[in-house]
Amino acid sequence: MTAPAAGAADPGPLAMVCCGGSIPFAVADVVQQQGRRVVLFACRGWADPVQVARYPHYWIAIAQLGRFSRLARQEGCRDVVFIGTLVRPSLGQLRLDWGTVRAMPSIMRAYRGGDDHLLSGVARIFEDLGFHVVGAHEVAPEILVREGPLAQHQPSARDQTDIARALALLAEIGPFDVGQAVVVANGHVLAIEAAEGTDNMLKRVADLRREGRIHVASGIGVLVKAPKPQQDQRIDLPAIGPSTIDNIARAGLAGLAVIAGAAIIAEPIEVARRADAAGIFVVGTIARQGGS
Amino acid sequence: MTAPAAGAADPGPLAMVCCGGSIPFAVADVVQQQGRRVVLFACRGWADPVQVARYPHYWIAIAQLGRFSRLARQEGCRDVVFIGTLVRPSLGQLRLDWGTVRAMPSIMRAYRGGDDHLLSGVARIFEDLGFHVVGAHEVAPEILVREGPLAQHQPSARDQTDIARALALLAEIGPFDVGQAVVVANGHVLAIEAAEGTDNMLKRVADLRREGRIHVASGIGVLVKAPKPQQDQRIDLPAIGPSTIDNIARAGLAGLAVIAGAAIIAEPIEVARRADAAGIFVVGTIARQGGS
Repeated sequence: MTAPAAGAADPGPLAMVCCGGSIPFAVADVVQQQGRRVVLFACRGWADPVQVARYPHYWIAIAQLGRFSRLARQEGCRDVVFIGTLVRPSLGQLRLDWGTVRAMPSIMRAYRGGDDHLLSGVARIFEDLGFHVVGAHEVAPEILVREGPLAQHQPSARDQTDIARALALLAEIGPFDVGQAVVVANGHVLAIEAAEGTDNMLKRVADLRREGRIHVASGIGVLVKAPKPQQDQRIDLPAIGPSTIDNIARAGLAGLAVIAGAAIIAEPIEVARRADAAGIFVVGTIARQGGS
Repeated sequence: MTAPAAGAADPGPLAMVCCGGSIPFAVADVVQQQGRRVVLFACRGWADPVQVARYPHYWIAIAQLGRFSRLARQEGCRDVVFIGTLVRPSLGQLRLDWGTVRAMPSIMRAYRGGDDHLLSGVARIFEDLGFHVVGAHEVAPEILVREGPLAQHQPSARDQTDIARALALLAEIGPFDVGQAVVVANGHVLAIEAAEGTDNMLKRVADLRREGRIHVASGIGVLVKAPKPQQDQRIDLPAIGPSTIDNIARAGLAGLAVIAGAAIIAEPIEVARRADAAGIFVVGTIARQGGS
């Protein structure tokens, strides 16, 4: 973990490489409120153009390292944040430029590993270019889920037991560079996330329930998300938002737990509103994973 | 593990509680070839009526313990085998009779646990009724996958590495009473099976590939199935058959590994034919799980 540069005399503007979802803009707002200038490097095809237009920005293609590095230097940015959803791109989807070609050996190394390797590889490449990679949660700690319930509902004793079991399972599979999320209902492990992502996993639970293949009553069960033990938290913290709540409701679960201080929340007020409407709990737990 | 009763002077006819798929009939054929009479107790809604008609049989509803136990005694059966696919039934789907009602406390205990608890609970209930529960693989060892390749193709060195990683992951999650199967491709864990079953998991891998979300080339990756460490092998061994091969081909994987001697194969000749046609390896591996 690198200390935020924000404490320095003048950290200069913050370069934000923005992908999908609403979290990049929540972070940008927080940073601007702190009086720091942001420059968005919006990834074409991922970032929302309407939102991007509200901030100083450049459009870049994924992997246009040369373009990013020239423009970010020109803007006086030394710190860079990566934020937003990005499905692992295929090599064929990458739009290369000379900066990328020069970094190619590092990129190829990053591609050979799992997601964690890819992401920490990306961080290393930007560090090699002379930038300081900081976590979104370091520049905008407000986006992190805090300890305790986020809305009206609280986990029951049974939910707490399910949460503990889920965290124990996540700790076991973390070393395999897989699975930030699992669903446990009344002690049964209903789903484990791998390449499909959390939304797809929740949809699967909803489908299994509709097909009568889950015999724990609706309203029982938890989604638990936790960072993998070796995850580079500067780049890839678990994230939740209003759509997570909708998917939990469709899956017939009681609620959602994340590790307090180690998960990003988009639109917390809207999350709380939907959670209250659906009778779902959202909780930041202090339970730590035991994994290596 | 209980020793087969087949060595005794006259073990009497074998009661076979048959659910879905073709494996029950493969087992029945093997047992009949050994000169032992079989009596099928075919589960209505699960067993194939056309096939069932080829053998001495009774139709029963799931959980009609009293009917089973009366008829099985009448037929002189002391040994009982459970065989075939059965999606965990909901309590509401069970057709109760008095025998079941008497066993209800044990059934309720079984329902509170995970799948393993349910299955070993079922075994205990039949033992309490005075029957001897034997494994299908004990009466018909021919249905077990043997060590080595089952068809023409062999796993490559990379496949072997993926198989080892998959077995290590299965050993970690086994104690959570979940996941007999995982998909690993070039070191990446693509999918972990929980409540959805192997076929659904393979379909998910095929979908992710079609959506461009798997960036390991087609033809790389393995499905590995292994019994859970604490699984009651008399009741629930991993099973493969021709449709497994079709689903592996659709998922774009190189092949399939199971633990030699700890997986059941339906229609091995057809499995080999389809594997050869699709260029897929099927291998019984001696690698053991390390799990508790």
